[in-house]
Amino acid sequence: MNKSGYRLSDIAERTGYSKNTVSLALRDSPRISEATRLVIRQAADELQYRPNYFAKSLSSRTSRTIGLLLADISNPILTETSKSLETELATHGYGTLFATANSTLSEEVAAVEMFRSRQVDGILVYPTRDHRNYQHLVDMRKSGFPLVMLIPGENIGVDMISVDEKRGAYIAVRHLIDLGHTRVGTIDGSDPRGNRHKFDGYLQALASAGIPFDPAFQVDPRGFTPKSGYWAMDALMSAPRRPTAVFVANDYIAIGVMKWCLKHGLSVPGDVAIIGFDNLEAGEYLSVTLSTVSYKTEDITRMAVERLLRLIDSPGNLPDPRVTLFEPELVIRESTGGARET
Amino acid sequence: MNKSGYRLSDIAERTGYSKNTVSLALRDSPRISEATRLVIRQAADELQYRPNYFAKSLSSRTSRTIGLLLADISNPILTETSKSLETELATHGYGTLFATANSTLSEEVAAVEMFRSRQVDGILVYPTRDHRNYQHLVDMRKSGFPLVMLIPGENIGVDMISVDEKRGAYIAVRHLIDLGHTRVGTIDGSDPRGNRHKFDGYLQALASAGIPFDPAFQVDPRGFTPKSGYWAMDALMSAPRRPTAVFVANDYIAIGVMKWCLKHGLSVPGDVAIIGFDNLEAGEYLSVTLSTVSYKTEDITRMAVERLLRLIDSPGNLPDPRVTLFEPELVIRESTGGARET
Repeated sequence: MNKSGYRLSDIAERTGYSKNTVSLALRDSPRISEATRLVIRQAADELQYRPNYFAKSLSSRTSRTIGLLLADISNPILTETSKSLETELATHGYGTLFATANSTLSEEVAAVEMFRSRQVDGILVYPTRDHRNYQHLVDMRKSGFPLVMLIPGENIGVDMISVDEKRGAYIAVRHLIDLGHTRVGTIDGSDPRGNRHKFDGYLQALASAGIPFDPAFQVDPRGFTPKSGYWAMDALMSAPRRPTAVFVANDYIAIGVMKWCLKHGLSVPGDVAIIGFDNLEAGEYLSVTLSTVSYKTEDITRMAVERLLRLIDSPGNLPDPRVTLFEPELVIRESTGGARET
Repeated sequence: MNKSGYRLSDIAERTGYSKNTVSLALRDSPRISEATRLVIRQAADELQYRPNYFAKSLSSRTSRTIGLLLADISNPILTETSKSLETELATHGYGTLFATANSTLSEEVAAVEMFRSRQVDGILVYPTRDHRNYQHLVDMRKSGFPLVMLIPGENIGVDMISVDEKRGAYIAVRHLIDLGHTRVGTIDGSDPRGNRHKFDGYLQALASAGIPFDPAFQVDPRGFTPKSGYWAMDALMSAPRRPTAVFVANDYIAIGVMKWCLKHGLSVPGDVAIIGFDNLEAGEYLSVTLSTVSYKTEDITRMAVERLLRLIDSPGNLPDPRVTLFEPELVIRESTGGARET
């Protein structure tokens, strides 16, 4: 039952204490004296005894394991997020079961099922941007299962903790408008079935300046990497009236957008101003440094884990779901540098 | 015992079959007729019954879970690797427990302990580059625990599957030498306590051309991001005799190296030729596209999972440990473009 081959009874035999005493000692029960605890701990160490979480799970119904579902992991910001979540969970004694989903609902559902069949205590979900079909998550939460989503949104009955993406897009596009741009494009998904908080922020900024939205100024990158940015920019710039500034949904995509400009002899920001999102370290090291929208991954991570653990600690009586959005900040670098004549 | 609240006995009661029949049917036993299986499956679905892997584990001693330990996850190539490993493991019905270790041995040991206390069936390890203290892994393997390391090395008694890093560094540096460079620097760790396969390949290439190694031409980036590359290049170029070409241990670091050149008015490859490692997508989208050493992540991933599953399937009789290294390829782009006068 134990990978080292030794059981509680072996420790009991070696130390002369009862199995019950051994079990209590290994769980640091106050009913056991310090001296006894040390003797038993030492015997357990010598036998390389490891507590069996599966057996524990059967009695306490807790696996001390969290499921982390990340869609679209090609964006390096999710690497940072997952590392930060794993570290934070580990400090609370939780292991992290990890799954990716290639932007499809069925894979997302399958991953969640896999987590549940492995009896995770709770799930953190960064769902794909390609749909807003969260019913399976809403149902889980309704049935009392601890669950936190790592994206912004309306309160649909599931806790959400994220940067305020709509606000971030708004301040980015407002920054471009304040520089004098009126022809502002965006490289971002606008599918009404998908997550479009950034697109909504873009529209709001245009509206705030009385600039009508031109559908030719929006191109979906259909991907999350520099290559998708390169080809989205190619499509955007083939419009008869070219934009003079572009808001890009993330910095990794923006690397390809910058490359397109360079390759086609356009100066950034002289001919086209560009701003991204996420404040990826690489953005600071591009040939033209990238303006971006920044937020603290660690703050979001810490609060998401805190919220999830509170749900786990309140079985049968979960606190009401809340949406917590962190305020993002503008980081102005060369790609939107300085004022501009129109 | 089951998160949906329903047990085998509930399905038995609903269908009229015995618990034993229900259990066999849900495990697709050939002893149960197809018609019976369908009735029982449907009842299980209606009750949202989920098999309990913990209970299964207690009887079969298998958790169908693999531990994946990634040190230094800031390199985006590890994102790709972890996604690819998770997907490959999922197709074999395995879940992935995930842990990171901030380049310290103690965190590495703690993560492995965490995996074992959760009864994983096997472990995949991408250890930190900062040490070669693999004794805890060697001991585990010796005790019969399924384990595969994702780095190259001598056969120390643990299966290893990786790109041939020494060979990759050799062909990269040989490429620089063949272009006429004799003052070739490297931005890579050379700590004799660490993993130095790339550094060994660099030395081998120099030796093959009769070029003596100059210690001033080696700078440790002490990190894995563009920023560490930027400052390593700053140190490397402050040598009185500057190198005319630089081999950088990975493409993500190289982004910062390229930026340093640009910022200091050096043309790439005119003043300094640069080559990286890993063929990261971003390298193709830098202002000067990055030459690099390429290999197929998916091939390595597939073989690593295959090897691990073979170990898991051979309890008590593990096949001898082997080291399998994949041959890398040179990808020549602008950063080393064309021949050069010396």
